[in-house]
Amino acid sequence: MVQTKKSMSSHVVTTGTARYECRIERGILSRIAEFLPAKVGKVFVVTTADVWRLHGAHITFPHELILFPGGEPNKRLAVVEQMAEEMLAKGADRSSIVIAFGGGIVGDTGGFLAAMFMRGIPVIQVPTTLLAQVDAAIGGKTGVNLASGKNLAGAFHQPLAVLIDPGVLETLPEREYRAGLFEVVKYGIISSPKLFSLLTDHSADVLAQKPEAVDFIVDDSVRIKAEVVTADEKESDLRRILNYGHTLGHALEAETNYTRFLHGEAVAYGMNAAAYLAERLSILPKADADEMRRVTNLYGPIPALNGLSGETLAGHILKDKKTIQGKTHFVLAESIGRVRVVSGIAGSDVVAAAAAALQ
Amino acid sequence: MVQTKKSMSSHVVTTGTARYECRIERGILSRIAEFLPAKVGKVFVVTTADVWRLHGAHITFPHELILFPGGEPNKRLAVVEQMAEEMLAKGADRSSIVIAFGGGIVGDTGGFLAAMFMRGIPVIQVPTTLLAQVDAAIGGKTGVNLASGKNLAGAFHQPLAVLIDPGVLETLPEREYRAGLFEVVKYGIISSPKLFSLLTDHSADVLAQKPEAVDFIVDDSVRIKAEVVTADEKESDLRRILNYGHTLGHALEAETNYTRFLHGEAVAYGMNAAAYLAERLSILPKADADEMRRVTNLYGPIPALNGLSGETLAGHILKDKKTIQGKTHFVLAESIGRVRVVSGIAGSDVVAAAAAALQ
Repeated sequence: MVQTKKSMSSHVVTTGTARYECRIERGILSRIAEFLPAKVGKVFVVTTADVWRLHGAHITFPHELILFPGGEPNKRLAVVEQMAEEMLAKGADRSSIVIAFGGGIVGDTGGFLAAMFMRGIPVIQVPTTLLAQVDAAIGGKTGVNLASGKNLAGAFHQPLAVLIDPGVLETLPEREYRAGLFEVVKYGIISSPKLFSLLTDHSADVLAQKPEAVDFIVDDSVRIKAEVVTADEKESDLRRILNYGHTLGHALEAETNYTRFLHGEAVAYGMNAAAYLAERLSILPKADADEMRRVTNLYGPIPALNGLSGETLAGHILKDKKTIQGKTHFVLAESIGRVRVVSGIAGSDVVAAAAAALQ
Repeated sequence: MVQTKKSMSSHVVTTGTARYECRIERGILSRIAEFLPAKVGKVFVVTTADVWRLHGAHITFPHELILFPGGEPNKRLAVVEQMAEEMLAKGADRSSIVIAFGGGIVGDTGGFLAAMFMRGIPVIQVPTTLLAQVDAAIGGKTGVNLASGKNLAGAFHQPLAVLIDPGVLETLPEREYRAGLFEVVKYGIISSPKLFSLLTDHSADVLAQKPEAVDFIVDDSVRIKAEVVTADEKESDLRRILNYGHTLGHALEAETNYTRFLHGEAVAYGMNAAAYLAERLSILPKADADEMRRVTNLYGPIPALNGLSGETLAGHILKDKKTIQGKTHFVLAESIGRVRVVSGIAGSDVVAAAAAALQ
């Protein structure tokens, strides 16, 4: 099932300290060994029981298995510490390497495990969800949650390679696949009218996972992410455009304790709020804003927003970690395919946008 | 007391990603604020109750205090996590900075806290022990212990600056000062015949903390450390010479659960073992080896080695984290002021050297 198609594409990420390939290729799960360094020591595959049951048969090179319990509540330092101790018990040293094999949580946690193990050993990211393939696995952001919030502890640790097999998405729960598509919509809005058109004109093919459609949307998303990371590794400016829809999205996730929405679903609401805000501030034409709202409907339904208030959500935004010294900024669209960071947005506009997303 | 002398010296560390000053200056504790970045947010001083009681009065700029409980058993991820939560509760964000103010344990733990907080905020190292001033605070190594061993989790996180006030050493317990002197002896052996001569010819001044003597030994040690780190940030080769005496030293510390010896004392035994091993392998003339043993006696006594065996210590060396894929290497002296890394040393020679150190 995984090896039905031979299309291959590749995008290179270059940062101040690293250069690596993001390879998109059906069947690449069976060829991970080709991407290991020549003089590597023991290989530690960090994954969950679910991913291992579905795709573990493709890992045929010698390795040690580190099973991560999975789930957002386990994305914590104590679990990373347990995995590090298990690696040591299984003979890990400075020549070892980690393969982070799974969704975004595995990538973040396994990547941070590699980043801090003996002050850093290499990691290869092998993402198995759409969200991880088009976003989390690329760019070197790794980390875990603190009690006070998500991703508050971590490291920038660029992988040796990102190996993406779009075929594995066939085993994803449909809701999770659709949630990942909202991140793809985001790439269309921030940078690619062509991607946006495909998502609006061929939604049936995308939802049915026609290989040509899936390969295109993954490839174009990875291309954009790789370009942005290359231009700006540490989110000082350009990389912030990747946070389009995430300001309100994070607020929604935090307010509902990360239980009601999948990340992409929260981002879908956040994109609707951003479209409203941009239209309200006369940055974005109404026709474009309407088109953006239409595409989120194509890939819905999204869980309802019952019981939340615009004021509450706006309150979260003001304590979001992306707030710097009290100033709130938003990534807003000027057109489909073009965004910019807008700083110093008034609290009343933030509340209005949050309330609009709740309609 | 701290501000009795105005001598100042400075050494610059340059790595692939950072460039910073190691400033040695009596009274600099009162001028830390001058080294804060222009646009810094909240300043978090990470220190222990002891250091704060002795030297906290010098910190007069606005800051939040994070008290680290101190001690090797608290150099753990759970404690770093607690401190990160406390920082967040006190308003930390990405514009915050950490001042790691204390001995080596505070520097390692506070440095790692900064390295992982929101994936990295800056740290200024303000070391208050001789060991930290001449070694741990310089070079960006940060980290904590795992149950399986010391410093097995961490990050390379170069500080913004290292601010060294030799005057604070007057408040150190005498045994701790002497233990730090063994690391200074190490710098003499690996790189500076002049420093070695001062340590042998003026030991009374050094032990009495005559300012001229202390300023010279701190300055020359910092110079060497800064040069080595500049040449080789990540210990791929040259930086290993800093581990002179540490191979057996770490084994001694591990075997005695880090309770019987201070780090420098264990290194003193390790240097004696290294001198024996180098002499045995005809790498080092006997006269130089004798001179090296003489200097460790000048700064003794060191706690006795009762009840330890050469075989046991050699066993530790084979599972030391500096062992790579099973090969053992030692840093050995060719003369006073010159060392090299010698690989593939036979197990029988390791046992003999360990046994010799026990005499």
